[in-house]
Amino acid sequence: MSWKLHNFFRSSTSTRLRAALNLKGLPYEYVPYVLRAGETRTPDYLAMNPAGLVPTLEIGEGQYLTQSLAIIEWLEETHPEPALLPADALGRARVRSLAYMIACEIHPLNNLRVLQHLGAAFGADEAGQKAWFTHWVTETFTALETALASSAQTGRYCHGDTPGLADLCLYAQVWNNKRFEISLEPWPTIARIHAALHELEAFSKAAPPNQPDAA
Amino acid sequence: MSWKLHNFFRSSTSTRLRAALNLKGLPYEYVPYVLRAGETRTPDYLAMNPAGLVPTLEIGEGQYLTQSLAIIEWLEETHPEPALLPADALGRARVRSLAYMIACEIHPLNNLRVLQHLGAAFGADEAGQKAWFTHWVTETFTALETALASSAQTGRYCHGDTPGLADLCLYAQVWNNKRFEISLEPWPTIARIHAALHELEAFSKAAPPNQPDAA
Repeated sequence: MSWKLHNFFRSSTSTRLRAALNLKGLPYEYVPYVLRAGETRTPDYLAMNPAGLVPTLEIGEGQYLTQSLAIIEWLEETHPEPALLPADALGRARVRSLAYMIACEIHPLNNLRVLQHLGAAFGADEAGQKAWFTHWVTETFTALETALASSAQTGRYCHGDTPGLADLCLYAQVWNNKRFEISLEPWPTIARIHAALHELEAFSKAAPPNQPDAA
Repeated sequence: MSWKLHNFFRSSTSTRLRAALNLKGLPYEYVPYVLRAGETRTPDYLAMNPAGLVPTLEIGEGQYLTQSLAIIEWLEETHPEPALLPADALGRARVRSLAYMIACEIHPLNNLRVLQHLGAAFGADEAGQKAWFTHWVTETFTALETALASSAQTGRYCHGDTPGLADLCLYAQVWNNKRFEISLEPWPTIARIHAALHELEAFSKAAPPNQPDAA
């Protein structure tokens, strides 16, 4: 069977993985879920992915891979070309660190279920949710801008002139930011890299508006 | 020079990395920081780690590694024995997925700066912070319990009988939960694995109460 990507057009973790699959030239069948409608909380979905999150990559009968970064590392190990991580261990540590700044310090705080829970637990309205979202993007994008702008290892993309793991996370996060119309003006290096990535078909094809379930 | 671990006894990401260094038998000098006193927001600290977070591993003059999981992957590549990831790619995908369930779905939502910001932004008091913390632990530990209890690959530890990357995250998160006295009773497999890990000196030596800066 062909691989099936269980995902959602606007999900940042789904965007990362779509771009990774595109970069590696790996085809997949697109299976969309509406998060707000609870379509990833059904018994069938939970049997594939007990956390009820997207994305899930189905690679065979009963074989489900979960957590976008774990799937991308698996892709890198099983389909090494083109590489998403540099050849040297220190370079890989730098790229993973940049990626995890986004994946562990921004995205987990700002996804849909967290914004919904802020509303339920603290009565946060749209303005409160926007302030929360913007706060965490600003904290980490400011640090990320420093890390990128101060390093000679930063090139056209986050690490040299080859797009990789950190770029997947950066590209997807900037799309996520558009939900609250966050300007990239304070972070010129991030803005420059995002624009350069968007020129690559593997990335632009993975962008939320270009998916079949885009609203 | 010997490696320097810039960290904080109660930090979950620091606990992960301490246990990893212990498992690999790699010595380090312990350099403590008081997060609440802003000691990781000084210009000197930010020059090492622009995000102002712990841990930072200093491996040489001007060489600073950041983000606990990126550092642990680097340790695994540069000091492969004993291995923290299984030999097969699907096994590694499983272990990373279990690790990221904690590292990307629980810890980022529940660390000190987030709890403080909940207070500042929404007036969350200690009870509100505890409810928030407990909510996110419960969401993901319930899914993690299912993932662990339903898989024949789970052994004495998260993946077989060798402690690894997922165990580092699980062990540290359970310590983090103690802050709000969260009982492990609903998650017997997690409780069993945590107890088994605590019998290993590499883990118990890494536990928050056993650090020089423990209150």
